[in-house]
Amino acid sequence: MENLLDAYTKTRNHTQTLCTPLQTEDFTPQSAAFASPPKWHLAHTTWFFEEMILKKHLDNYDVFDDSYGYLFNSYYNSLGDRIKREHRGLISRPSVDEIYRYRDYVDSKMNTLLSDSPSKVIRELTILGINHEQQHQELLLTDLKYTFSHNPTYPVYKDVNYLGTQSKTNEWLEFNAAIYKIGHTKDSFSYDNELGAHRVFLEDFKISKDLVTNGDFIAFINANGYKNPKYWLDDGWHWLQNNNISSPLYWKLVNDNWHHYTLSGLQPVDLEAVLTHISFYEASAFAFWAGYRLPTEFEWEIASSKINWGTVWEWTNSAYLPYPNFKVAEGAVGEYNGKFMINLMVLRGASLATSANHSRFTYRNFFSPETQWQFSGIRLAK
Amino acid sequence: MENLLDAYTKTRNHTQTLCTPLQTEDFTPQSAAFASPPKWHLAHTTWFFEEMILKKHLDNYDVFDDSYGYLFNSYYNSLGDRIKREHRGLISRPSVDEIYRYRDYVDSKMNTLLSDSPSKVIRELTILGINHEQQHQELLLTDLKYTFSHNPTYPVYKDVNYLGTQSKTNEWLEFNAAIYKIGHTKDSFSYDNELGAHRVFLEDFKISKDLVTNGDFIAFINANGYKNPKYWLDDGWHWLQNNNISSPLYWKLVNDNWHHYTLSGLQPVDLEAVLTHISFYEASAFAFWAGYRLPTEFEWEIASSKINWGTVWEWTNSAYLPYPNFKVAEGAVGEYNGKFMINLMVLRGASLATSANHSRFTYRNFFSPETQWQFSGIRLAK
Amino acid sequence: MENLLDAYTKTRNHTQTLCTPLQTEDFTPQSAAFASPPKWHLAHTTWFFEEMILKKHLDNYDVFDDSYGYLFNSYYNSLGDRIKREHRGLISRPSVDEIYRYRDYVDSKMNTLLSDSPSKVIRELTILGINHEQQHQELLLTDLKYTFSHNPTYPVYKDVNYLGTQSKTNEWLEFNAAIYKIGHTKDSFSYDNELGAHRVFLEDFKISKDLVTNGDFIAFINANGYKNPKYWLDDGWHWLQNNNISSPLYWKLVNDNWHHYTLSGLQPVDLEAVLTHISFYEASAFAFWAGYRLPTEFEWEIASSKINWGTVWEWTNSAYLPYPNFKVAEGAVGEYNGKFMINLMVLRGASLATSANHSRFTYRNFFSPETQWQFSGIRLAK
Amino acid sequence: MENLLDAYTKTRNHTQTLCTPLQTEDFTPQSAAFASPPKWHLAHTTWFFEEMILKKHLDNYDVFDDSYGYLFNSYYNSLGDRIKREHRGLISRPSVDEIYRYRDYVDSKMNTLLSDSPSKVIRELTILGINHEQQHQELLLTDLKYTFSHNPTYPVYKDVNYLGTQSKTNEWLEFNAAIYKIGHTKDSFSYDNELGAHRVFLEDFKISKDLVTNGDFIAFINANGYKNPKYWLDDGWHWLQNNNISSPLYWKLVNDNWHHYTLSGLQPVDLEAVLTHISFYEASAFAFWAGYRLPTEFEWEIASSKINWGTVWEWTNSAYLPYPNFKVAEGAVGEYNGKFMINLMVLRGASLATSANHSRFTYRNFFSPETQWQFSGIRLAK
Repeated sequence: MENLLDAYTKTRNHTQTLCTPLQTEDFTPQSAAFASPPKWHLAHTTWFFEEMILKKHLDNYDVFDDSYGYLFNSYYNSLGDRIKREHRGLISRPSVDEIYRYRDYVDSKMNTLLSDSPSKVIRELTILGINHEQQHQELLLTDLKYTFSHNPTYPVYKDVNYLGTQSKTNEWLEFNAAIYKIGHTKDSFSYDNELGAHRVFLEDFKISKDLVTNGDFIAFINANGYKNPKYWLDDGWHWLQNNNISSPLYWKLVNDNWHHYTLSGLQPVDLEAVLTHISFYEASAFAFWAGYRLPTEFEWEIASSKINWGTVWEWTNSAYLPYPNFKVAEGAVGEYNGKFMINLMVLRGASLATSANHSRFTYRNFFSPETQWQFSGIRLAK
Repeated sequence: MENLLDAYTKTRNHTQTLCTPLQTEDFTPQSAAFASPPKWHLAHTTWFFEEMILKKHLDNYDVFDDSYGYLFNSYYNSLGDRIKREHRGLISRPSVDEIYRYRDYVDSKMNTLLSDSPSKVIRELTILGINHEQQHQELLLTDLKYTFSHNPTYPVYKDVNYLGTQSKTNEWLEFNAAIYKIGHTKDSFSYDNELGAHRVFLEDFKISKDLVTNGDFIAFINANGYKNPKYWLDDGWHWLQNNNISSPLYWKLVNDNWHHYTLSGLQPVDLEAVLTHISFYEASAFAFWAGYRLPTEFEWEIASSKINWGTVWEWTNSAYLPYPNFKVAEGAVGEYNGKFMINLMVLRGASLATSANHSRFTYRNFFSPETQWQFSGIRLAK
Repeated sequence: MENLLDAYTKTRNHTQTLCTPLQTEDFTPQSAAFASPPKWHLAHTTWFFEEMILKKHLDNYDVFDDSYGYLFNSYYNSLGDRIKREHRGLISRPSVDEIYRYRDYVDSKMNTLLSDSPSKVIRELTILGINHEQQHQELLLTDLKYTFSHNPTYPVYKDVNYLGTQSKTNEWLEFNAAIYKIGHTKDSFSYDNELGAHRVFLEDFKISKDLVTNGDFIAFINANGYKNPKYWLDDGWHWLQNNNISSPLYWKLVNDNWHHYTLSGLQPVDLEAVLTHISFYEASAFAFWAGYRLPTEFEWEIASSKINWGTVWEWTNSAYLPYPNFKVAEGAVGEYNGKFMINLMVLRGASLATSANHSRFTYRNFFSPETQWQFSGIRLAK
Repeated sequence: MENLLDAYTKTRNHTQTLCTPLQTEDFTPQSAAFASPPKWHLAHTTWFFEEMILKKHLDNYDVFDDSYGYLFNSYYNSLGDRIKREHRGLISRPSVDEIYRYRDYVDSKMNTLLSDSPSKVIRELTILGINHEQQHQELLLTDLKYTFSHNPTYPVYKDVNYLGTQSKTNEWLEFNAAIYKIGHTKDSFSYDNELGAHRVFLEDFKISKDLVTNGDFIAFINANGYKNPKYWLDDGWHWLQNNNISSPLYWKLVNDNWHHYTLSGLQPVDLEAVLTHISFYEASAFAFWAGYRLPTEFEWEIASSKINWGTVWEWTNSAYLPYPNFKVAEGAVGEYNGKFMINLMVLRGASLATSANHSRFTYRNFFSPETQWQFSGIRLAK
């Protein structure tokens, strides 16, 4: 099982590499209930291995610290009480150093377990844990960006902003009405929400090869797109009013020029670059204004082999619902995906901040329609 | 166009018949932002005809009262400002009598218009206005029930409770995987959200001939269904906790026996009767607990000719989203349906409180998943 | 005891006279938790006599309706549960007619009781009940005005607006430092919060003979008084920002001229008339801006015999706290005043809407500092 | 001016000494809008010297960092915009080290200024800044305790808990009715809210030599003190219900024994020790239940020379209002005290966490009546 141990080690190291540019003070703050502190990500991903694997499958395993189950459980009701989600930023102790010791401890135990012909169950759970940690790697970046954005000094994380460019083609890909197969069918890993491979009938559709750019979106702003209710879903219009939204997240006018906060600091908005940090509401309004619509997640999946994707998560007009024959797994692992299947919209693709080896064309990401803090963008359909 | 005038007159009269049992004091109170006062329903449905038809299509039409556009517009942004939704219950003037005069005035003008070979546009808008008023007839009842339920004296509306019974069959109807046709295709009226007839592929499914009864649901309650998070969507679980929900709306224990408030007053819950006044969250949790699932709106539509429906609105596991080729109409009428296509779930069928001639198997009703105050129930699928 | 019965009857009739201009629809709506519906005032004042006197002191008294204790108790914890304060406007039943029957019933029983040499306890409680009802007479007017003000049609109550005028004197009355006596000492009725007559030392002070006028206050507005935090208490400044306050309650600019809603409809603001409907925060900011201060309630009481008062309630800079030797009465009556002695400011005097025989120079009215809906104004001191 | 420089240096060093037991992670979190992070206290007290003194009075002074005015201004409207109070915990940068460099920089400049025959203005502002920093020293401890209390691991700050003991005397001190002098009259420093020395007439009163102990308060709890509305101010009763309060802050039952979180960790409650961490509402309810009352701030000041005080801040039944002839100072310094004179209650004395040289018998501390996180306790009067 050398490969699995390698993959485990690589993933674990990568999380820590992402934290290299951080100062100790950066590890604790939490700027919203949805945006967890770096220290919490470091610990929670570790707890996942401890709780789901080591406690059950490694003989005589001693839990590193009894209080960590309470501190670093995210939302698993079946695994007991936990601190309130919005209190994660108050937990200054254990220190960052202590969390790194926790990681070392768990890594060494996992090493033992994975070095000794692990069972199928252990292997599968380890793969799940790796994927889980990869997901948190992207969240660590988006959450950090959100927290830093509250600081008027525009802190620089490092010289990388995860923003994308493209060469515009202005092409539309055409697909004919037919029955298509949807869902994950390979031997390789997928989340349970991608399973339940099934057939879907799609009517004729066209999908753009290009992603919407910042320049495209500024045209919408300049056409009073944020001021005219007719482009907006009713909920979106109220969201706009109640939160004084008039641009993508992180944008601000400096001397009449659009700038945005990036992980490399405040920068001018590049008109050619791919638009990101917009909510589903903004994506929907833009599409309506432009005379098009968003693709469904099924159209996207079918078209995926012919488009370049991976720059930004792409909002679809599909609600996050179970596939036919979706089964909730037994135990805590069953809380991973299924219980969130309401009031969320599906995003497809991946972003430049997504971890390597953590994207595939059947992947279903999901957030509520007002979500802006992910690297989310727009592809049009008609 | 005698038939249309007849239909118009019948619908208008029916609204007023529904109000016969009311005392003057009952016409004004509003118990929630979502539950409008009877007087508002009486006026708003009238304003719809005035605003959408008479002002544009009847020569020299004099608006009955200039302030009514502000007072009785519901949510049409394109038709100007309006009082806040939650302030509808504060408007004691105009009086109920004055609103009846408004109705008479508009009826007499509509009479003139419809008696004189009305154009296709007028006919279509009149049919829309009739359907609009029929929708509000059911809302008038559900809103009244909600308001009355806040009164500890359990007011009796009249000797009708709109609760249904059935003979249980314990039968499951089976359908084979195939392409099915979905959506309204007839010449007759439908809302725009039912159009865009299209093909959908459904995998094999079974659907129950029976609706879930009060007795079935009490078994769920007694099995601690409201206390175990594993049956619940995560949002549903939070909704439960935050609102102290532990039974369907209007239910209360009296000497350890379940009673519920009905439009005929407080009554014991009939175990054989059809369950109603439950949210999507409760429907979903019940289905999970019972080992089944809710049908999609497509499965429901395909099965509809073989099941008895019309007792309660039936929650489906489909989000309220546009059909392929859905088009938002130009002008104010375009705000009727499309702008609500987010964060809502589809209900199919009709309830005993639904107006006659206002149900069809392609009808898509839609409410947010926490909605309990409609006559909503459960049909299972697998 | 004829005089007491007369006083009782006069008070009871006056409440109903105040309701003569109302339409049935006006009796039910409630526009804020603090502003009760007319029907509730009619019933609550009646319940007070029933609960505090008839149930205990009239042999074989039959309660008019068992549910009324729940419906019309205001805030007496010792008298059991009650509907939520903010739900008073939802109670369409009992009808207005029924409440008048309730009033007749209680009046007839009180008549019996008061005609037959009532005991001292009964007489004292009756006097309390009369004063209680007089208080509610003013509240009925201020609450009605507040509710009507939400109606964009500016309903006219009747041709009376309770707004005052004065001839300006520009005089300051001077008082020397000395020990003064404060509090109610006569045989006549007072509330318990005026008792505990005691000595207070006042340093030299001056107090204006005039009340601040609308014209005075417009000068403050025009001097950007609402936009400069330095005039405002910190809480007041936040109140202003959070509620978008930029003028006294009911004021609005019509073609650049200040108008205000009055019980006689929308009218131009009279510059010479006495300012009213301002919060303590506004009173305090105005005084600071003008270079003066508000008087304390003790200064006001000492000066009262030399100033004309009774036009508007006058904000003082005294917090509502117990006098030395203040005693909370036993039983429900003890909840009348004492439990509100926190976070409220004292107003002295009376307004034109105050009932006849319901004012005296020791009277302590009290509201929270953001309160605008009472007929409240400003007298300056230095 | 050596003494002043000494005092300055001593105060500045003491703040840093208080931070010695902290880990870097402890400096940033903020657990409530009212409880600021240690790093913010370190920086804000420094900014006070920079902004109020160095910028105006040291020639060629270069501001350490332009962004600090925005980051570390507390509530001075006249000194420009600032980050939202509740966002102080999100500011991970500048780092703790950087803030210590800021302190060194300002200290060195202050050193220069104070070494060179500073003017009266500079001396007075420096004394104000020293007192300001001393105030923040206590806040640093109370805020830290509040934040640590959210951590289920009960972090230990160090072996000091600032909790007090006393030998009970059961004595009441008696004072006769008379005119008394109130307020600060010495040459030494006081805040502006203590000035305006004036005469107050006090009726006869008695005041306890003892503070209420934990044991006394447990008797109140055991007598259902938290469950009976009759002991409580109405606002206090609602506060209790809305926040599920049933004991002093930091108390919890462990195996049926009261424990409390202290800066030395979780400890059993010592029945003989002085009660602390209670709100004004709890103080008032306890006094009512015990058959006594709280003293006024004037009674307290007059009695102060005969009682032992300094263990806990003592709630009085006086609202925080201006003394006669209170003057708001010109400029930013004028925002220190006056603008908070509404809706707050006065506490007198000092606590064991109060800095040395920062207490006097005329000192007026002030907090809103629900405040529990200060070291606040009860002394009874009658």
